[in-house]
Parts: sequence; structure tokens; C-alpha cells
Amino acid sequence: MNERAQANSGLATAAAFHIEDIFPSVNDGRFAVKRIAGEPVEVWADIFRNGHDVTVAALLWKRADAAEWQSVPMRHHGNDRWTATFRPTDCGRYLYAIEAWTDEFATWRRDFARKQDAGVDVTLDALEGASLLTRARVTDPAATAVIIEKCEEFLQHGSHASLLSPLLADAMAASQSKTGRTVSRSYPLVADRPAARFASWYEMIPRSQGDRPDRHGTFKDCIARLPDIAALGFDVVYLTPIHPIGRTNRKGRNNSLVAGPDDPGSFYAIGGAEGGHDAVHPELGTMGDFRAFVAACNAHRMEVALDFAVQCSPDHPWLRDHPEWFRRRPDGSMRFAENPPKKYEDIVNPDFDGPDAPALWTALRDIVLFWVRQGVRIFRVDNPHTKPFPFWEWLIAEVQGRHPDVIFLAEAFTRPKPMKGLAKLGFTQSYTYFTWRTHKGEIEDYLRELTGYPEREFYRPNFFVNTPDILPFHLQGGEPWMFKSRVALAALLSSTYGIYNGFELLEHDAIPGKEEYANSDKYEIRVRDWNRPGNIKDYIRALNQARRDNPALQQTERLSFASVDSGTMTGFVKRSVDGQNVVAAAIALSPEVQEFWFPLGDTEIIVNGGARKIAAVENIMTGERHAVEWGGLRLRIDPHRDPAILLRCLA
Amino acid sequence: MNERAQANSGLATAAAFHIEDIFPSVNDGRFAVKRIAGEPVEVWADIFRNGHDVTVAALLWKRADAAEWQSVPMRHHGNDRWTATFRPTDCGRYLYAIEAWTDEFATWRRDFARKQDAGVDVTLDALEGASLLTRARVTDPAATAVIIEKCEEFLQHGSHASLLSPLLADAMAASQSKTGRTVSRSYPLVADRPAARFASWYEMIPRSQGDRPDRHGTFKDCIARLPDIAALGFDVVYLTPIHPIGRTNRKGRNNSLVAGPDDPGSFYAIGGAEGGHDAVHPELGTMGDFRAFVAACNAHRMEVALDFAVQCSPDHPWLRDHPEWFRRRPDGSMRFAENPPKKYEDIVNPDFDGPDAPALWTALRDIVLFWVRQGVRIFRVDNPHTKPFPFWEWLIAEVQGRHPDVIFLAEAFTRPKPMKGLAKLGFTQSYTYFTWRTHKGEIEDYLRELTGYPEREFYRPNFFVNTPDILPFHLQGGEPWMFKSRVALAALLSSTYGIYNGFELLEHDAIPGKEEYANSDKYEIRVRDWNRPGNIKDYIRALNQARRDNPALQQTERLSFASVDSGTMTGFVKRSVDGQNVVAAAIALSPEVQEFWFPLGDTEIIVNGGARKIAAVENIMTGERHAVEWGGLRLRIDPHRDPAILLRCLA
Repeated sequence: MNERAQANSGLATAAAFHIEDIFPSVNDGRFAVKRIAGEPVEVWADIFRNGHDVTVAALLWKRADAAEWQSVPMRHHGNDRWTATFRPTDCGRYLYAIEAWTDEFATWRRDFARKQDAGVDVTLDALEGASLLTRARVTDPAATAVIIEKCEEFLQHGSHASLLSPLLADAMAASQSKTGRTVSRSYPLVADRPAARFASWYEMIPRSQGDRPDRHGTFKDCIARLPDIAALGFDVVYLTPIHPIGRTNRKGRNNSLVAGPDDPGSFYAIGGAEGGHDAVHPELGTMGDFRAFVAACNAHRMEVALDFAVQCSPDHPWLRDHPEWFRRRPDGSMRFAENPPKKYEDIVNPDFDGPDAPALWTALRDIVLFWVRQGVRIFRVDNPHTKPFPFWEWLIAEVQGRHPDVIFLAEAFTRPKPMKGLAKLGFTQSYTYFTWRTHKGEIEDYLRELTGYPEREFYRPNFFVNTPDILPFHLQGGEPWMFKSRVALAALLSSTYGIYNGFELLEHDAIPGKEEYANSDKYEIRVRDWNRPGNIKDYIRALNQARRDNPALQQTERLSFASVDSGTMTGFVKRSVDGQNVVAAAIALSPEVQEFWFPLGDTEIIVNGGARKIAAVENIMTGERHAVEWGGLRLRIDPHRDPAILLRCLA
Repeated sequence: MNERAQANSGLATAAAFHIEDIFPSVNDGRFAVKRIAGEPVEVWADIFRNGHDVTVAALLWKRADAAEWQSVPMRHHGNDRWTATFRPTDCGRYLYAIEAWTDEFATWRRDFARKQDAGVDVTLDALEGASLLTRARVTDPAATAVIIEKCEEFLQHGSHASLLSPLLADAMAASQSKTGRTVSRSYPLVADRPAARFASWYEMIPRSQGDRPDRHGTFKDCIARLPDIAALGFDVVYLTPIHPIGRTNRKGRNNSLVAGPDDPGSFYAIGGAEGGHDAVHPELGTMGDFRAFVAACNAHRMEVALDFAVQCSPDHPWLRDHPEWFRRRPDGSMRFAENPPKKYEDIVNPDFDGPDAPALWTALRDIVLFWVRQGVRIFRVDNPHTKPFPFWEWLIAEVQGRHPDVIFLAEAFTRPKPMKGLAKLGFTQSYTYFTWRTHKGEIEDYLRELTGYPEREFYRPNFFVNTPDILPFHLQGGEPWMFKSRVALAALLSSTYGIYNGFELLEHDAIPGKEEYANSDKYEIRVRDWNRPGNIKDYIRALNQARRDNPALQQTERLSFASVDSGTMTGFVKRSVDGQNVVAAAIALSPEVQEFWFPLGDTEIIVNGGARKIAAVENIMTGERHAVEWGGLRLRIDPHRDPAILLRCLA
């Protein structure tokens, strides 16, 4: 039925085509798929309608803010499943959709050829085909010329061959109204820069980068540390909060309730007389010093990540300037942050649901934009799961709408669904449970979950081996093989990973019975000998170098575990996006020497555009080469030397 | 942020809660889930928001045309997954949705109790709890009374116990504004009558039900056949088209192009001088005779299914009365139906996309409604995949909107996706590939596909062993064991199945090299001796009786295959909806005698509300009982006696 008739009829106006099971998608398009700018995005969909007419399908795509769609022809793969690829060139938000229609001339042409082959009289059919030509819409002048020429050839000479000309088929494909045209809903995609997927993070507490425990470290001290960190192969230097710290209810050493006169307080109690979220702690230096630090990082080809923690100290200027952003108790006192029965007396949380929330939301966005102006492009967001999800969805869209290169890392350690929910609504990267996944089955199951569909489309893990808050039990023994095993797991399984300063020194003094650091520099100023004997800096440097040299390690989702016959050894293979770099790794999860068989299975590598079997491997750390025999490798690991073996696969 | 502030702010107004992964659903609610009226519908959803406040969730449901939603509390199952059940009582279209909100008083109460337990000073907390009471909204008078009473108790005596009273918690749960209230989109569901899921179909060609080949069978002949068909245990008598047949280009015997003077023509060439889709063929009798046939079926506790085939013969009255519904060729001739290079000269198809399509759509709907008025409630729709899908979605909704007990069976043999598409858009039941699934792996894979999620929510298979169009190769040898094996597979695997008349007589004369009947009564009048020696009517009767006696066989989706160690033997277990009836079956797919082990695994049966292991089985055909030992059964099948063993499981 034509559109006008349908509109007049009051009958249902459902689409002629079913377009469904669109891949990739997150919650059927409610949330954006995440990809890297410049890389191809393969889109798939089931497309069908009634009957047997020739279907044409196109993948439509555009930047979300662009007016015009671009169109890529889709290819029928089989069983009514179609596919096409587009390539978002720049960072930003994109939309894609599927368009399908019936090509009436192509249908006529196919049926005409079948009848001709069967020897059926096609006189009338030829006239019907020619009449389709007269209904063509003028679009491209060249196509129009072909249509007119072939039509005249037919009318003057009765030439069926003219009607079957491939040139004419192409001209008509471009010149017909799209019968039954159906367009799917549109699906969002965020294209990030490569650092969203691949980076090695070094977390440090700026005030602890000095050389004397009685002196507050400064941005200048931080700058002095950069050559060493850069030499280790890190890409991101992540600073815990750098803002003024409150005095009211300031926490003392080891999180004690009463601070001594010289205790610096927790840097998460943000804001004091010196300023709030848009100020730097005076003892760290000036804003100019901070910008110098950013510049120094960039000079070392590293970038800065800042902590974005929404809470305020009781001395934060906002409590004075915007009392309506905070809730008070019946006696007029401040409502401190709490996790009943625990109370955090040095912190108050703004009220996201209060009457002046729009101003609060805007102020928080402007804080992020302020630091963007200071040269920061990565924000590690503290505890996002305790703030409203719509706030984050809005804030990330607001910031990335202006600066699509900004990366947000969600530091949410909570239940699995809210962690995935935050990733869906826009966080570029996410903290994970890796820190507590120690057994082979746990590690492999968790990686299968994160790299499966649809998780891999929205959840980019950032594996931290430790954090200022977490000294996991397995590190508390201080065994070098365990530190190496953990950093190898993090660095090789996940393309984004991080260590918190001190890990490289095997720091492991814990509060007994807890997964927390004793004498944590969250509450005091500490100094370290960064070249202390026994450190594993060379080991970390080698891992980071291997990551830089092997694109297979610069992504997380193209991962498959190998059937290594040991309950304390995990083996896996990773392939680069283009398939040209393939790396196999085995990592020991216990200290004993193990010999084992590593089956490579059907692993293939792309060489000169073709898939080839793996014939040999090169040990990335030693350079030794081994031939692959019987489809695998006999390997030996002595974790006290090195708990990991890393092999580059060769055709 | 409150709603007004948000509306004024221009900020994003996304929902506080994520409500996702709603089960059951088809294409995320684009199409309806199918269920049976009176049976419970279990709904599941992931529900979460930021923070740790107490979440409350409700399942909302209503008839699609009702004004008010009904609400069922949801239960948290774990890992942020919630569930609740509703029961659509009558046939019709329903909607369901999920509502979630935060219970502020319950949150306060939980945290207050924790602080009290930890010995924290809760003076201010008590005041805060009491202030929540003053913000309650008056709804239920009893709840209001409780709130006032407990509030006064607290104010007069400072009683914390009053604030913690469970009565008060319940009263507040019902009286607070729903903080963060979020409602999911709504999901459609169609509740059908039981016959939509469970029925044995007998297909017959009315004109072949007489007793002389030179006489056109009549509705009276059909009525005479009913006692025998009812005795076989069939529930539905399905008639091929009963309308006048065109004379122009009428097909002769064996689909020949020229009909003899006495050839009756194909009943799919609908319409002649005597009338069209709303008339009966005069030689079958009158409309009164047809109604008498319907009444006679009902008297035998059977019902009638009619064929709804949209095409017309060239003599159909519509060609005269509505020439605009049909397309003509350049020479003014009729455009016959075709499947190039094949042509069907006795049929023309109306043009669903023509300028007067709305009138055509309406006329076709009115044809269905006409037959509904004659007492027909089941329509087997011929070739629906060649008509526009929006037409079917509209027609089924129009008819079921008036008569929710009407059942539509899609006779679509086409590609898998369009077959599923038709089922999604509304067809109650669907033809399947069963007729061509003969090997064990094929059969089991196909049943796993149809009974898996989401297929089982929208695709109700109707397994036909043969049809007037299809005499499959495996039946062409006429071996009784094969006919029995096929009907046992159909009747036991699928709760809806059918045979086409002659199957019970082992009819198997084929056109050589084709899966078509020789001398098909699609093109001539035939008579049969319905009690011909060698018939398998007793076998079919026993199968249908077993189906009526065992609710496990009255549904298709609660099916699991057993690991029977034979490539030519399939074994499976089916459980009734309530779990109280469990049936195990083994069916031979080759003629040799087989002994084999049938593992029952962890199969359980519900007895007095509790799950019990299977201790014994009773052979449904012979009544013999056997104890289950070592978790299974040793069975022996001689296909020449009976290719199937059917066992009722006992606790």
C-alpha cells in the first residue's frame, strides 16, 4: 500500500522489513557501544520481509551531531543475516542504523533471466521491465543517461540484452524509489582515543614524592620522579587528589579520629580555607607548578590522570557559599558521610537530590572542565556508584560533547550489575574485581565474562594490582614471585592496568587481618627509596616494553585461554585487532617449578593478508626461538626466576 | 533532585533506576510473549540504582485495554535480579512493566538498627526517622492511624522501639512518595486458550470424504466421518478450502495444465460464479450444512479449523467487483501468481500494495470475521510469508481484539528468520521443518532451538507428519514402523501435531523423485477405505490417549533429551507445567531391534509440593512397572512391534 493510502486508511503502519538482532548493541541501543577511533566497526543485522523480492540493505552512520547520514552497502552473509563496516575516524559520539528496501528492477531482472533460461515467452515481461525504467527518479545524471539509452535501445530494437545490461542494473539501483523502505532505530557508539584501551598506569600520592618524611612533597618533587617512571614504560601518571585538605575532624595517622598538629589529613577530605575542588594544596605548589607537572609528563610522552572525588571536607568553600547543597541534621549540625554504623567525620557529601541540585550538577561539571583547561584529559572518578547514575550519564556527555578525548575511569567496587551499569552509561574504563581473583578458575571465568558479548562492547577493564585502599592478602607475604605473577597477569591479560606506588618495592606491611596498608600515606607523608634492593622495576619495565612492542597486548577482548593441564598455571593467547600479532603467555599462580604442555590449537596469524598456522615462537624476554611441534609447546616455568613466559607467535 | 527542579534545569532526566534484562520478552517488547490464560507468568528483571538505599520493586500488569495497572510486589532473588508472578485469567492481550523506587523509611530503619547495634548515639537519627513520619502521604486510613500512633508514642515517650515497629514499617511502605520512582517500558503478552498449545489435528479434504470417486463428497459425508476421527482422539478437524473453485485455467489431475470436463480443480483456486471466500462450494452443501458440520464437530468435543488462503481464481467475484485490487499486464491480461519460471495460471494474487489496499485489507479481515460468525475459531493460513508482514500483524490484532479465542496457524515453509518473524508478529502456531528432520542430531538440535529462549516464548510448533503438499521421502517406502516412528515423534515431542488423511492408511504413492503424492486429491476426488487392513489407527489412538492422560505431553518447552547411546534412537523427558507429571520416551529412528540404557539423570517430579527423585516408571501402553536402578533404565525396542516406549515417571 502506498504511504498516502496507508496514512488515510487508519490501518497499522508497521514496517515492511523486520530489522532485528543488531550487533553490536548494548541494551538494544539504550547505551553506546565503545570503540576506538580509526578502527573498523563491523555491524550485523537480521533483515527480511515477506516474499522473495530482491532486498537491498545499507548501513547508515554519522557523527551524532552531523546532519547527514553516510551510507555503506550491506552484504548478505547467509540466513537473512547482513553485514557492513564503517570506520569512525575521530573521537566522539556516533550513531548507526540499518536501512532496507526492495529493488524492484533487480527483482524483475532476476525473474526475467530465469524465465528466459526456461524458454518462457517473455514479451510482456520485457515491457514490464521497460516500464520500470520510465518510473526511475532522476538523481545522478550519469545513471539517468544510462537509463534513457537502454530504454531507447529496447524501444527501437526490442533488445532484451539492453534491459539486462549490468550498467542499467546499477543505474536503476541508484534511481528507484525505495519500495518498502524501512529504517531501524539508531544505535549509539562512542569512539575513544587509543589510550582509552591501552595504557599502563602509575598511581602516586604527590605529597609522598619528596625525600624527607617531615616535608610535604611538591609538584616539583613529582616532576623529579618522572624520568624514572617514564623509563619503566608507564603511560599515565595518576595523582590522588591534589586539593586543599580540611582541618575540621581531620583524620590522623592510620585513620585515627584525632589528628596530630602536623598530620596532613586524608586528601579525600577535599577543600579548606585555601579553596575547593578547583584549587591545589598550597604545600604542593601553585597552579602554575601543576601545569608545569602536566607539561613535564607530556614531555616524557606520559599524561596525567586526576582523581575526581565529589565529597567535601567540612571546611570546603561550598558549605559557606552553597549551604543549600548540603543536608543538615535536626540539631543543625552537618550530615557527615556514613556507611552505617561507620561514619566519616572529615567528609560531607553534597545532596544530589536537593532543591538546588541543577546548580550543583553544573558546578561539578565545571570543576571537570576547569581541570581539562589545565591540560588534564583523564579522570579517575572516586566511588561513582554512590552518586545518581543519571548525573554521571549527563556529566560525561557534557564533558565529552566538548572534549571527546576525555577519559573517565570508574572506581566502583560494588555489586556486578551497578559496576556494569556505570560502564554502560558512559564511563570509558572501569575498575574490576581482578584484585581479588587469584585462582585459575576465578581468573579465567572473570576474563571470559569481561571479554564476552555484550560486556566487551561497554566494559573496558583497568586491572589494578594494588591501590592506596587495597593491599590484597596474597601480597602481604611480600614474595617477589607473587608480585611478579600479579603484575604479569594484570599487564598481559588487560590492555589497561595499573600499580600504586610502592608495589614495585614489594611494600606489603598490612593492618593485621585487613587488606589495608599499615601506615598508609592516605593519612601521613611517607618517603621511599625508589631504588631499594629487591625492587622489581626491571621486571615491570620489561612487561611494559612487551606491551608497547606487541599490539596483541594493546587490547583485551581478543583473548582465548589454552587448556594448560595444571590448576596453578594459566595459559592464554591474544591476537591483535588486525590479527598480525599473536602472543601466547603462561603465568604461574603458585611458586613451585612446573613443566607443562601448552597447546596452541588452531591459533592462526595473519601474514600478508592470509591466515597461517603458528610454526614457531620467540620468547619475548630472552629472544630464544622454538619450533611448534605436535600443535603446541613443552614449557618450563620457575616462578622464582620468572613466573611468566611470554611468546610471540610466528608463521 | 526533585522533578520540578529537574524540569526547570534543562539537565538530563534519565531514570534513577536501571531496569533491564527483562524476562520474558521478545525483541525487547516489540512483540508479544505467548502464554496460556490461567497459567502463572514468572517475570524477572535486573533492578539497581546508585548507593545502598532499600529498593522496592513491583510487577505491574493489566489487560491491554484496561485503564488501571495491577501491582505485585517483586522479590529480590540475588545479584540485583528480582522476580514476581502474575496470572492472566482470560484470553487476550496484556501488558506488564516493572516499577522500582527507594523506600526512605526502610532505609532509615535499617541504618538506625545497625547504629543501635553498634552502640552509636542515635538521638538525632531517631528525630530524623520521626520527621519521615510527618512527610507520609495519607492513603490507607489504617496505615495513617498506625503512623500517627507510633509518632505520638515516640514524641511522648522517646520510644525508639515504636519507630522500629514492623507495623510502622509496613504503614510507611504504603504511605511514602516513591523516591526515584522508575517505570520500565511495558511489554506485551498474549494469553491464549489451552487449545493454542495442545491439540491433535486431523486434516481432511472434504470432497474426498464420500464413498464414490465419481461423486463430490459433502459436508454430510464429513459429518459421517466424525465419530471415527473423534474415536482416534483428535481435537481439531482441519478442512482444506471449502469455497467455490474457478473454471478458468482450472488444473486437471496431477496438476496438469488442462482440466477434463469432470475434473474438480484445485481448491486453492478460490472463487467462481457461485461466490468467493465467504461462500461454500455448492457441491459440498449449503452454509447451513457447514454450520451443521461445525455443530457435529463440537458435539464430538472437536473443533473445526478452516484454511485461509488469500489468492483468487480468475473467476473470483472480486476481480469483477474490485478490479483495482489486482494487477494487470501491459496487454491488459491478468497477472497470474508465479514463482519464476513457474506460473500458477489458475490463481491471481490481490495486490497488497495497490492504491485501494486499505479496502482489500479490510475485506480480508471481514472474511475471517464472517467465518468466525459461522462458529470457526481456528484458521490455518496458507503461505502467509508471501503477504506483507504488517498486514498479518494488523489482521490478527483486529480479529483477536474482537475474539481473543481465535487461533491462527502459519503455514509458512520458508527461511528460518521469516518463519520466526511471522510467529513473533502474532501467529498463534507455526508449521515447522519437522517433516524434514529425520536424523537424531537434526531432530534434537531443532527441538532445542524451538524450546530454547526466546523461541519458546513466541514460536508454538505444530508438527505435521505429512500434508497434501508433502509426502516426505522417508514415508515413500510405506514401512509401518516408519509411519509409527514419525507420528510418535510428532505426537510426543510437540504438544500440537497433525496428520493429513491417508497417513493412518500408510498412503505412500509418490510422484517419482518428488516429495509429492501421486494422484493427489488436491486435483481430483478420491475415496478411501478408512479401515483398510494394515492401518495404524489403533497406534494413533493410543498416542492421542497418552497425550490426553499426561499433562507433560500437553506442552512442548519443558523438554530435555537423554544421553541415549545410540545414533538411531532418541530419548527425552517432558515435565508438565506444574511438574507433577513427568514422562520419559524413547523412539527408534531405524528398524532394527535395539537394547539401550536410558539415563534419567537428575529428573525430578513434584509430589505434594516437594521435588522427589524418580523411583519407578510405568509403561503407558502396557501398564508394566519397572523400578529405576542406577539412575536409569535398561530398555529394548523392536520397532516392528512399536518404535516407541512411553513411560510415566513415579516417585
